[in-house]
Amino acid sequence: MQLLNGKLFSEAEAQTLYDIMLNRRDVRGNRFLDQPIGEEALQQLLDAALHAPSVGFSQPWEFVLIREAAVKSKIKASYEEVNSKAAELFQDEKQERYKRLKLEGIAEAPLNIAVFYKPSAVPVLGQTEMTEMGLYSVVCAVQNMWLMARALNIGIGWVSILDPEQVKQILNAPPANQLVAYLCVGYTDGFYTSPELEMLQWEKRKAAEAAIFYDGYPGGSSIQ
Amino acid sequence: MQLLNGKLFSEAEAQTLYDIMLNRRDVRGNRFLDQPIGEEALQQLLDAALHAPSVGFSQPWEFVLIREAAVKSKIKASYEEVNSKAAELFQDEKQERYKRLKLEGIAEAPLNIAVFYKPSAVPVLGQTEMTEMGLYSVVCAVQNMWLMARALNIGIGWVSILDPEQVKQILNAPPANQLVAYLCVGYTDGFYTSPELEMLQWEKRKAAEAAIFYDGYPGGSSIQ
Repeated sequence: MQLLNGKLFSEAEAQTLYDIMLNRRDVRGNRFLDQPIGEEALQQLLDAALHAPSVGFSQPWEFVLIREAAVKSKIKASYEEVNSKAAELFQDEKQERYKRLKLEGIAEAPLNIAVFYKPSAVPVLGQTEMTEMGLYSVVCAVQNMWLMARALNIGIGWVSILDPEQVKQILNAPPANQLVAYLCVGYTDGFYTSPELEMLQWEKRKAAEAAIFYDGYPGGSSIQ
Repeated sequence: MQLLNGKLFSEAEAQTLYDIMLNRRDVRGNRFLDQPIGEEALQQLLDAALHAPSVGFSQPWEFVLIREAAVKSKIKASYEEVNSKAAELFQDEKQERYKRLKLEGIAEAPLNIAVFYKPSAVPVLGQTEMTEMGLYSVVCAVQNMWLMARALNIGIGWVSILDPEQVKQILNAPPANQLVAYLCVGYTDGFYTSPELEMLQWEKRKAAEAAIFYDGYPGGSSIQ
């Protein structure tokens, strides 16, 4: 309990983190280079993931690294099926625009990573009431990996237009495991300076004030 | 589409990010100082959160900043109730140890932040099949904020031993909103060099090899 001498960071170091966060992008197949991720960079990505916070220090994550073209092509086929149904949910002009978007880089990225949540067989401290905390820990691992990739100038795209059960079957995942993320990972020909869906005017950046409240939402009696 | 000149980072900058990740801790009430978070630091924390990735650039997050003692004390009372039930789920000696752990800093931290997911009224690109993606986007915002806090030498503790419905009621949250995280935020008297639950031998760090698989889980026919 006496080891309270964790490193203190400088303003310049905080600024570096801020720059990495603001430059992180979701990278799709039109940007990936056909250049493998070296062993050292891969270790750094995994190390970042493995040092994410986890509820009750449960570390409930598993990572399947996919490089085989045959496996990727099964995943890609599953994506195509799900995506054509997804497009139907958007109306008129938005549907036309949806169909023109490149939304994944499964085949183009040299590395894909399927990230799973593995439930614990025993109660986990902090997960007894909010049972979704295990899944959220895995998401923290994904975000750590994503930021680390950006700092190494490696792009990551998160593909969520997938049927998790089909992905589990393709990867022979244990029945209890839950697919949290499917990531396409690779070097790129550059990083956009703004989010792609913002540049393409698919969605606007929201005003910060609209998302921030003080001591409760307005109109309540509980905080008066 | 031509703005592909996003910043490239150096090895030293990647190392800084790695150091921040490895030094991030979950901070509880026995470590928080009674020292307010200044406006500039608060803006940096929120800015980090607002630049997290979000599915379809939906930015589905809302943040309630809590400083009023009366609000905190209602949340703390809710925690106490949930935590005494949670302790019962652990057996014998583990239950005794559980009861001695300090697991939150609601009253001690000068700032608490309740982080909510606000569902979209219209279909969101990338969330049509995996509907949990909106929640996961909010978790990415939490992790960005947590890392930014650590870089600013500010501690964050994530309290998940709470009844989300009680918290929503206390904060007068809209019925459709979902509580993702409740964070205790403040300066500290130091950061532990290892995770607290590891130091206290509550859980061990898992071997990396146990969590990493190649091209699928073993034993499957699908990858042969």
